[in-house]
Amino acid sequence: MADADRGALAQHWLDRLAACSEPGPGVTRLPFTPEHRAALGVLTELMEQAGLTVGLDAAGTLIGRQHGPEGASVLLLGSHQDSVREGGAYDGIMGVVLPVLALMKLRQDRVQLPFAVEVLAFADEEGVRFPTALMGPRALAGTFDMAALELRDRDGITLRRAMEAFGLNPDALPGLRRDPAQVLGWVEIHLEQGPVLEAAGQAIGIVTGICGIERHMVTLTGTAAHAGTVPMHLRRDALVGAAELTLAAEALARESEGLLATVGALQVRPGVVNAVPGEVAMTIEIRAPDDALREKAGVTLSRTAHDIANRRGLGLEITRTYAQPATPCSPQVVERLSQAVATGNRAAAQFMASGATHDTSAMAGLCPVGMLFTACRDGVSHHPNENVPEAAMSSGILALERFLMQFQ
Amino acid sequence: MADADRGALAQHWLDRLAACSEPGPGVTRLPFTPEHRAALGVLTELMEQAGLTVGLDAAGTLIGRQHGPEGASVLLLGSHQDSVREGGAYDGIMGVVLPVLALMKLRQDRVQLPFAVEVLAFADEEGVRFPTALMGPRALAGTFDMAALELRDRDGITLRRAMEAFGLNPDALPGLRRDPAQVLGWVEIHLEQGPVLEAAGQAIGIVTGICGIERHMVTLTGTAAHAGTVPMHLRRDALVGAAELTLAAEALARESEGLLATVGALQVRPGVVNAVPGEVAMTIEIRAPDDALREKAGVTLSRTAHDIANRRGLGLEITRTYAQPATPCSPQVVERLSQAVATGNRAAAQFMASGATHDTSAMAGLCPVGMLFTACRDGVSHHPNENVPEAAMSSGILALERFLMQFQ
Repeated sequence: MADADRGALAQHWLDRLAACSEPGPGVTRLPFTPEHRAALGVLTELMEQAGLTVGLDAAGTLIGRQHGPEGASVLLLGSHQDSVREGGAYDGIMGVVLPVLALMKLRQDRVQLPFAVEVLAFADEEGVRFPTALMGPRALAGTFDMAALELRDRDGITLRRAMEAFGLNPDALPGLRRDPAQVLGWVEIHLEQGPVLEAAGQAIGIVTGICGIERHMVTLTGTAAHAGTVPMHLRRDALVGAAELTLAAEALARESEGLLATVGALQVRPGVVNAVPGEVAMTIEIRAPDDALREKAGVTLSRTAHDIANRRGLGLEITRTYAQPATPCSPQVVERLSQAVATGNRAAAQFMASGATHDTSAMAGLCPVGMLFTACRDGVSHHPNENVPEAAMSSGILALERFLMQFQ
Repeated sequence: MADADRGALAQHWLDRLAACSEPGPGVTRLPFTPEHRAALGVLTELMEQAGLTVGLDAAGTLIGRQHGPEGASVLLLGSHQDSVREGGAYDGIMGVVLPVLALMKLRQDRVQLPFAVEVLAFADEEGVRFPTALMGPRALAGTFDMAALELRDRDGITLRRAMEAFGLNPDALPGLRRDPAQVLGWVEIHLEQGPVLEAAGQAIGIVTGICGIERHMVTLTGTAAHAGTVPMHLRRDALVGAAELTLAAEALARESEGLLATVGALQVRPGVVNAVPGEVAMTIEIRAPDDALREKAGVTLSRTAHDIANRRGLGLEITRTYAQPATPCSPQVVERLSQAVATGNRAAAQFMASGATHDTSAMAGLCPVGMLFTACRDGVSHHPNENVPEAAMSSGILALERFLMQFQ
């Protein structure tokens, strides 16, 4: 089969999987639902065509195993089966299909790997149904908190009940923990969900690490007032203070390589045309592949907020509501992936950080990790228009094949 | 009676009038309601104590008339009886009480004025119950649009029905039009609703004119995106564009004497912590006592918005949704008022523009107008905490007395 045809084959399987969805635009496939069950059926068929031995673990992770020599360690690949509501046909699930197609090709070519390989389809990475996520990889890494089983979906069903109704035994989760000595590593291929590769004319990017994230909740308090009766110099306008802080966050991130800063939410009170704003509540999110860079940015923006508030006579509350450290990829895995990409493609490899969290973040608790991105159209993701060109998927399969052949 | 006691007397009447309110915090007195009826009873009692002849016109304006010599023209004073919901005890109604107390004093002093005087309590200036306002002064000026009678309150009752239920005949409104040749002028005393007089240590300010107002609706459209996956230089963030425009509006107003610019409402979409904002809808309101200054500012800010949008690759829609020209006060009336204030007070007169609209705006369609402001505590208005110190009310009564004695 020509390389180009393998992109089409991937698309064929992804189309079948996209049909495993709630009705409505795009793909809606939440964990432990009939749509999840249907997707597992399609993935099982695919995995069995590739000669894999298929099973479902207690976390709802579908595992397709290609056995290696007696007592050999295992290399893990995969991603998640679930989608956001009205999401796309590639996010997560493509990272299950492509490694299976790579293994299928190696089997056709009668390549014998000196290690075992498992392709994993985790139940829940998006965290849409329950206020938790990453149970599958956390169970493997031994970092899953059993208390999360009592969290409820919007219908009041606990995670435990949903899993039991799906035929799983949540009490068996602690037993899923893998012995790190038996695991060679983890590799995930995922669409970029951003515009960088497309803009650079690259099909594949090599992820050097997953950004850490911190979030701040900021409240600026001034004095709400009649927009006609308070002269400019006597105003305590919370919104102009918030505007300064928004621009400061952008400027800081623009001048710091790798740093992202976003004011995503901003509410104004009273929020009417003829009143000077008395209060603004806003969020600042900071991401960086380097934790020290991110934390320094957080401190800088907090200081900037205090300066603005002091200068404008505004009250200020600023709270860091969330912090998640960065996950560096294994330099060895990154090196092997870059060799595989360089071999399979003519262009120089594109290295990049992942700004989004992935299953890889949790797998880093178990073993050395690496990640590939594929280009996606217009950087669109989490949307029915999400698209990965077939050529990029072909490149991805080829890179995974070469990686598997060159690994160890 | 000492001057100070007259502030206390004003407070006594204002307390009685404040009781003419719906239950709840502060004062809620909407037009053509039982509360309006109760306030008319108290005002009638006050006006009759001052020897005025009291009547209600077809617009629901209570008129207390002090007759002048046969065939003499009339000087009009007054303000509005209504409040906002949960408003204060001074806004509007104080401008009815103080001129009546001034006339009461002149009567006690047996001063005979060479002209007639009428004190007017208009039904509706705030426009809270119906989506229209200023019917009373517009009827006198002949500028009332009879189509407004079909506008409805939130219970579906038309203005016409509400007036009829109040015992008025709306069809008689056109007949209320006054002959400008018979009207000497209009003077309104009103609390400042801002912090300027209090900050300057002044009891009374002389209004030189009422600001014109224009409002713009601005929509900036970028690309909503994952806050982790789009590098800073590839973002089209609508909120940072809006922040620039907000600061530009403030800077322009700060550097232009008399100009006010306010971004009062601003909504962000999607408005979540981890998404680059794709759309911002915001308002810009501009006020100035000089129409050319205001219109130039509108053009400048519109150009700034276009520059920002072009530079940031944002879509822009900007629409001027409202424009109301400035109302200059009559230089002759301003001059007489400033003499009256200077006589009654030791400090130099404080001249200022009114950023808010008042009954005076509509009365300018009939005759030369003037306006006085009293200081108010902390600039607070439209709020239960609204307060005018008794000393400021005493000064106001004194200024009106001297104005009446010196007029003509």
